[in-house]
Amino acid sequence: MKASDWAGFFADEASLDREAYLFLDYYLECSGDPELAAAHFCSEQSTAQWRRVGSDEDLRPRFGARVVDLQILDGPRPEFSYGVGSGSDGPVMACRLRIAHPHGNFGPRLPNLLSAICGEGTFFSPGAPIVKLLDIEFPETYLACFQGPQFGVAGLRERLQVHDRPIFFGVIKPNIGLPPEAFAELGYESWLGGLDIAKDDEMLTDTDWCPLDRRAELLGEARRRAEVATGVPKIYLANITDEVDRLVELHDRAVARGANALLINAMPTGLSAVRMLRKHAQVPLMAHFPFIAPFARLERFGVHTRVFTKLQRLAGYDVIIMPGFGPRMHMTDDEVRACATACLEPMGPIKPSLPVPGGSDWAGTLRPLYEKLGTVDFGFVPGRGVFGHPMGPRAGAASIRQAWEAIVAGETLEEWAKRHPELSAAIAAFGRPAHDQAASPQSSDPASEANAAGGDS
Amino acid sequence: MKASDWAGFFADEASLDREAYLFLDYYLECSGDPELAAAHFCSEQSTAQWRRVGSDEDLRPRFGARVVDLQILDGPRPEFSYGVGSGSDGPVMACRLRIAHPHGNFGPRLPNLLSAICGEGTFFSPGAPIVKLLDIEFPETYLACFQGPQFGVAGLRERLQVHDRPIFFGVIKPNIGLPPEAFAELGYESWLGGLDIAKDDEMLTDTDWCPLDRRAELLGEARRRAEVATGVPKIYLANITDEVDRLVELHDRAVARGANALLINAMPTGLSAVRMLRKHAQVPLMAHFPFIAPFARLERFGVHTRVFTKLQRLAGYDVIIMPGFGPRMHMTDDEVRACATACLEPMGPIKPSLPVPGGSDWAGTLRPLYEKLGTVDFGFVPGRGVFGHPMGPRAGAASIRQAWEAIVAGETLEEWAKRHPELSAAIAAFGRPAHDQAASPQSSDPASEANAAGGDS
Repeated sequence: MKASDWAGFFADEASLDREAYLFLDYYLECSGDPELAAAHFCSEQSTAQWRRVGSDEDLRPRFGARVVDLQILDGPRPEFSYGVGSGSDGPVMACRLRIAHPHGNFGPRLPNLLSAICGEGTFFSPGAPIVKLLDIEFPETYLACFQGPQFGVAGLRERLQVHDRPIFFGVIKPNIGLPPEAFAELGYESWLGGLDIAKDDEMLTDTDWCPLDRRAELLGEARRRAEVATGVPKIYLANITDEVDRLVELHDRAVARGANALLINAMPTGLSAVRMLRKHAQVPLMAHFPFIAPFARLERFGVHTRVFTKLQRLAGYDVIIMPGFGPRMHMTDDEVRACATACLEPMGPIKPSLPVPGGSDWAGTLRPLYEKLGTVDFGFVPGRGVFGHPMGPRAGAASIRQAWEAIVAGETLEEWAKRHPELSAAIAAFGRPAHDQAASPQSSDPASEANAAGGDS
Repeated sequence: MKASDWAGFFADEASLDREAYLFLDYYLECSGDPELAAAHFCSEQSTAQWRRVGSDEDLRPRFGARVVDLQILDGPRPEFSYGVGSGSDGPVMACRLRIAHPHGNFGPRLPNLLSAICGEGTFFSPGAPIVKLLDIEFPETYLACFQGPQFGVAGLRERLQVHDRPIFFGVIKPNIGLPPEAFAELGYESWLGGLDIAKDDEMLTDTDWCPLDRRAELLGEARRRAEVATGVPKIYLANITDEVDRLVELHDRAVARGANALLINAMPTGLSAVRMLRKHAQVPLMAHFPFIAPFARLERFGVHTRVFTKLQRLAGYDVIIMPGFGPRMHMTDDEVRACATACLEPMGPIKPSLPVPGGSDWAGTLRPLYEKLGTVDFGFVPGRGVFGHPMGPRAGAASIRQAWEAIVAGETLEEWAKRHPELSAAIAAFGRPAHDQAASPQSSDPASEANAAGGDS
């Protein structure tokens, strides 16, 4: 690219029609001139060759992505982070790049959106091998093309008749290997103990040893019994993650038999597949997070989890289960909060999704999670913290509710535990009360939960 | 996990029923005892809690993933690679881990397969924050559940009547912004010059300024004219990347109008969506590679491109476009070869896919690509190397065919160029003949191609 061509890929943000562009923030490490790298970056994302040979046309004004801000963060450095890139074009500069991408190039389509914002143009731009997509902003007219969540946080609360506290989930364990009958019995016990939502593990699917039809039938029946016994609504969250062309059929089969929410592994199944299912869905759709960490974990490469949270909300998930606090999940506190915010913040006509930050949770991790989020609009999703509880899942669920009662009462977990044996047993099994969430999974080795669950009766 | 529990997640590979397991190779950095980390890794991938509280059942023999090999590569190191993980449980050891994962846990379903092999269990296993999935082996019975490519390499060669050389593709440029009429004219010229396949860019979709219907109609008509003019079959490869629930409809509309192969961006659209389309497809399906680099670029984290190549072949792609040789694409030569091998090697009943390693190609990069692959079973896919050629796309395509003629004749590119003006002009525009592919994109700055294309007539 000639220096005289660069200007075609730069613009003053204030001069642009905001409704015509997506705004994208990237971290970029480049060698050579950062302005040239930024111009290439926009060219590669949009109209890489902007005129035919022999023509004096210029496709950039309408179709070109534009640099609207370029900040040098630091440099020059001797080499790229993470050992990628030769750096042979000169010293390495770390930049923060904000670009405006004309969405009319591809339209309100998730696969094409992904191809534009984290595709070949983004990751193969000359001289810039280290890239992380940090954030995305959508104009209202683009958002208006999507349905987003059908129920959202308010709709889910209405269904559960729970308005003033977090939603209590539990992952039924053993997650893999139980027949439907045993699995349903565990779910029933956990609802009686106080869970709102008993859920399939993200790895449990429609198999010969635990067919979805039979599981949904038995869990549906157990759920209705639990609703009668407790007098409050309950949800069985069935995992229908499967091939794309089975999703609608599995939705119908699971819902007809008694599942009243559905889990789909967002990235392995694909965001677009869930947008398709959303058009048909009669129950809340909930996302699980496998296959996001491999492109999101590193600080300076890949795609930020916040972006994927926004895209899952746009695709129509009412609930987004995500990696939570604590060293086990390898997320900074700020990153977890950014994802929760991305679920709840205003997003044009798109309803909020309920954030469910998870990972090695038990009664002792509820208070720090609540305090770090600063809202009751979240879900709490223990697995072994309920189903590995030494007194069984009903007691495990009770220990979670007791931990919330202690918070409401303004008492410490230890004080409350003196009058609540389920909570006391949870503390004994899973660790000391964790006032510092960050310390919790360390002191409470996840392995000890398996011990408590798998060992003594 | 108690030390006595570890053994349940280890096995002698020779003692296992090979048809019941996927075999997975991982790179792993862990703190603490590598054997404990490996046992946790298998537990998290499969039956994380293998008995109910109060029961003496053991779900591991049938449902547990098993460590079949664990090699310490190096260590102890003071910290994890890439600044992830606290390392507080002790020194960091780098390992190569081979595990057997019982596929009966989830069955022959791509979303569930992805969730199992690179999901939460893989990337959130205690003490092992740095993981890369390096390879996967499928048993015959698992492969037999998939259709794989419908045409494969042999079927594609039959359609094109090309049996003894690489297949010549070209990405029509300008990629974004041209109306269908101008776009079709470029395609026509490139076929006359000698391309086998003129293709849409991976970012070009069904938009108001270039609707797929009109594009397929005009390109189809141009293709038929080119077939008459040249006497040989040609392919127009239309990009139908779009929302999942439009794929079948777009297939029908594009094929009815004259597209005779279809491009889908594999990861943004989802592997499962293509498996769905494969059941319906009447023409070859071709994959493009956006959204793989963020998983795959780093040496010690994420998922190896070889794994994605195998999964794309399994999903049914006849052609797999992938990042090729040279520093622009940030792939080692071995990695590109591994992906090409993954396309072509025996895979039970699954046909081979044609590998198309791409990136800044022009006539001068054909010989090194051929020499590095050591086979004619590949596709060559220039963009600006054809459509930015200073004499226009017909000459650009001719320069590619001339480069192949030089190889067949055993002549150097420079010698051959003396009698072939199109090749001579390509050398002048895009760089000196590249006998060393690695040096080519450096000497031939990608920007200079845009210059040549966008500047002089």
